[in-house]
Amino acid sequence: ADLFREARELITSNAQVYINRLAEAVAIQSVSTDLSKRNACFQMADLLNQWIEDLGGKSEKVLVGFQELDDGQRFDLPPVILAEFKEEGKEKPTVLVYGHYDVQPANKADGWSSDPFTLTEKNEMLYGRGSTDDKGPILAWLWAIEVYREMELELPVNIKFCLEGMEESNSECLADLLHRESRSDGFLVGVNYIVITDNYWITTNRPCLTYGTRGVASFECEVRGGSQALHSGVYGGCIAEPMTDLIQLLAAVSNGGHGNIDISGCRKEDCEPLDDDEKDLYEGISFDTDQFRKEAGNVPSLVGDTATEVLMNRWRYPSLSFHGIEGAYSGHGLKTIIPGSVIGKFSMRLVPGQDSKKVEEEVEKVLRERFSQLKSSNELRITSSSSEAWLANPKSPLYQAGASALLKVHGIRPDFTREGGSIPITGTLQKILKVETMLLPLGASDDGAHSENEKIGKKNYIQAVHTLFVLLEEIDRIHQ
Amino acid sequence: ADLFREARELITSNAQVYINRLAEAVAIQSVSTDLSKRNACFQMADLLNQWIEDLGGKSEKVLVGFQELDDGQRFDLPPVILAEFKEEGKEKPTVLVYGHYDVQPANKADGWSSDPFTLTEKNEMLYGRGSTDDKGPILAWLWAIEVYREMELELPVNIKFCLEGMEESNSECLADLLHRESRSDGFLVGVNYIVITDNYWITTNRPCLTYGTRGVASFECEVRGGSQALHSGVYGGCIAEPMTDLIQLLAAVSNGGHGNIDISGCRKEDCEPLDDDEKDLYEGISFDTDQFRKEAGNVPSLVGDTATEVLMNRWRYPSLSFHGIEGAYSGHGLKTIIPGSVIGKFSMRLVPGQDSKKVEEEVEKVLRERFSQLKSSNELRITSSSSEAWLANPKSPLYQAGASALLKVHGIRPDFTREGGSIPITGTLQKILKVETMLLPLGASDDGAHSENEKIGKKNYIQAVHTLFVLLEEIDRIHQ
Ligand SMILES: [Zn+2]
Ligand SMILES: [Zn+2]
Ligand SMILES: [Zn+2]
Ligand SMILES: [Zn+2]
Repeated sequence: ADLFREARELITSNAQVYINRLAEAVAIQSVSTDLSKRNACFQMADLLNQWIEDLGGKSEKVLVGFQELDDGQRFDLPPVILAEFKEEGKEKPTVLVYGHYDVQPANKADGWSSDPFTLTEKNEMLYGRGSTDDKGPILAWLWAIEVYREMELELPVNIKFCLEGMEESNSECLADLLHRESRSDGFLVGVNYIVITDNYWITTNRPCLTYGTRGVASFECEVRGGSQALHSGVYGGCIAEPMTDLIQLLAAVSNGGHGNIDISGCRKEDCEPLDDDEKDLYEGISFDTDQFRKEAGNVPSLVGDTATEVLMNRWRYPSLSFHGIEGAYSGHGLKTIIPGSVIGKFSMRLVPGQDSKKVEEEVEKVLRERFSQLKSSNELRITSSSSEAWLANPKSPLYQAGASALLKVHGIRPDFTREGGSIPITGTLQKILKVETMLLPLGASDDGAHSENEKIGKKNYIQAVHTLFVLLEEIDRIHQ
Repeated sequence: ADLFREARELITSNAQVYINRLAEAVAIQSVSTDLSKRNACFQMADLLNQWIEDLGGKSEKVLVGFQELDDGQRFDLPPVILAEFKEEGKEKPTVLVYGHYDVQPANKADGWSSDPFTLTEKNEMLYGRGSTDDKGPILAWLWAIEVYREMELELPVNIKFCLEGMEESNSECLADLLHRESRSDGFLVGVNYIVITDNYWITTNRPCLTYGTRGVASFECEVRGGSQALHSGVYGGCIAEPMTDLIQLLAAVSNGGHGNIDISGCRKEDCEPLDDDEKDLYEGISFDTDQFRKEAGNVPSLVGDTATEVLMNRWRYPSLSFHGIEGAYSGHGLKTIIPGSVIGKFSMRLVPGQDSKKVEEEVEKVLRERFSQLKSSNELRITSSSSEAWLANPKSPLYQAGASALLKVHGIRPDFTREGGSIPITGTLQKILKVETMLLPLGASDDGAHSENEKIGKKNYIQAVHTLFVLLEEIDRIHQ
């Protein structure tokens, strides 16, 4: 308890230093999707590398591949930082921390109130691109280690970092590296726990631990007719229009209406049954459905009558969304064209119990069966890809360590939550290393990770340092 | 016959003069949709006005209204030219000629092989914006009159011109003017025949006369959910997605599949029955379906086994086309959004026998019935508009005069054709004046009226002068 208080005082007194360093990191425009900013990605890796070495860590920047433009120009992918804090000769558990130092694009003109790459404090919030996704959280890890150094204490656990710079660009080439490093004497060998701090609370003021994410199966359903758009006056009635086909195909997929998908392997009864333990987790969650409804663009109503039902629809049941159509007219007003070829885009969120490959097959079957009924002379092409849902055991020791750390710092037991979206790295790492994995969000639901005016609460950022400091102790405790 | 030959020789010897004048007209960028080019529209009206007066016509430029920008800036609409060639004291039939002097936008960068506003001769074709739509044809009328002047002959008929400068912008304010001028001693009083030269042959080499156009009913079907697009991971499953509703609504409309609309008032049996006379018109038409299929972007096949069936689907039966969706994702690749509100756009081409207002009502009924089945919490808004099909009697004297003129100039009897698209002015004028109306196309099917590299055949342009010269004689003959 003394240790806990001492650390808190030290962290509080260091607050401005932590903020200044976050400002330094935010100022580096490490936008991985923008090749003209590739140098900034390398600069950001250098800064992290320097900080890690200053703290006594061993850090390596690993090049994993390159991107090539049509004109043959090549760009190295931003390096993956593989770093380690380890005292030789001591038997300690090893925690792998994953994070990313690249950020989403940002332009002041998109609606930012302040320059996105200048960390700006306003009403106790720190605004800037990357402040919460994911520079703030990875910096908090470093300062938690620094607290141990400043207090002249040994780290209670060994820590490995995997910090990538391509997360916002599909983590290109990362999985290959992870596979390689998990073999024989690779970097990932010996990891006991995985902690990922790259998601968010489900409210603005209450910490949570995340034990599941949905998977996703994405579909592009193309109906190919002719090579060009045609005038509907001149050609309407004498050609088989691809849009007419596509609409019937999409309608066949969504047959079940809102909140129900009527396709084998995608129905509610195909999901893992709800047991009492899981039900209990939902009962405790503080979740304001009306607030959520308003945040969702003030939709007329939610699917689900209670907070629990809404959250279950969001986390533990599959969903189907139609995103749009490529190749059709999408502008304002009327344009009487017959599109030549069109691609319908939709995806399903998947949950434990569903086999993502089987889902891809079943959806394709529905599309092909409907298409054959249409007797169309057009051509149907379907492409799909998928990732599985991920689910951890919230009763496992790692989650108890996380809950204990949050309780100590915030004074409340965290909610145990899931994510409706996918965080593919979670499943990838767990599959490769086969160790307990925990998602520990440090930012609030309204941080606006990919939006304009992204921010992290000043209090959240500082408390994150404290939380991670305590978490290392707690992990040490569960491991004994 | 001497007269005919003499005129032909004169016209042939004048060819270069006609081409130079067309070049002068094409050089004026009278793009009515582009307010920055509004001055050019006025300049074009001035040029026509001058030419008409030089030929001894009485011409007036009538201002019919203005457009107002959001900032309060006002732009006068291009004037409507109402001009008249009439010898006082002579009893002659009066022919009203409609045409338009505004053109579609054009940029060299869109794929023009030569500057769109510099008339360019290549392989006996005259390339330039407006060459065939509709400057070439209206100029041909003026030179036909000029031939009478040069031959020192009286015009066999009185001619009135209505030449507008807003045709490519929905003919704004024109209908009001036409209504006004049809009353008491208005400009349109006393018209016996209407001839419109603003459409095209159905082949590249064979003249035709057009006796029908389809109408159109256009629909915007909006499903309103929330005010913004949402992330499908975070919100999928717990909101009623507007796209899911819209797809069921559109699917309900297209229930009948290709070549059949299964909605009351839109089925094939709701169209006027096919009699033997009409059947005969189709039998004679030279139409290459395979050529048509290739021009349609090489679609896999046409709806209809024979030329006659294809043409009937194109001209005398209704059709349904889905144009696209506003508000949904339309880009390349995947974007896992849930659109907040979406608008489905579709239209039906209408034929004689269909009541366009009833079609609007029936489609709305289908949409609303399906929507109520969906029990969605979203809001449905439907807007629609329509214009009726138009049909003339191809056996009437005016069409016989047209056929006779084309036979004399081209040496072949023209095909009698219809248009799949709509030419709203045709129905409007016929409704107001209640006199025989004929569409006399002067350009070829591949002239590319609204495309890049718009052109008119040099031979077609020159023969047009001859055709119109003879047509005036023929109209005089039928009227006696
Ligand atoms: Zn992130
Ligand atoms: Zn992100
Ligand atoms: Zn035109
Ligand atoms: Zn036009």
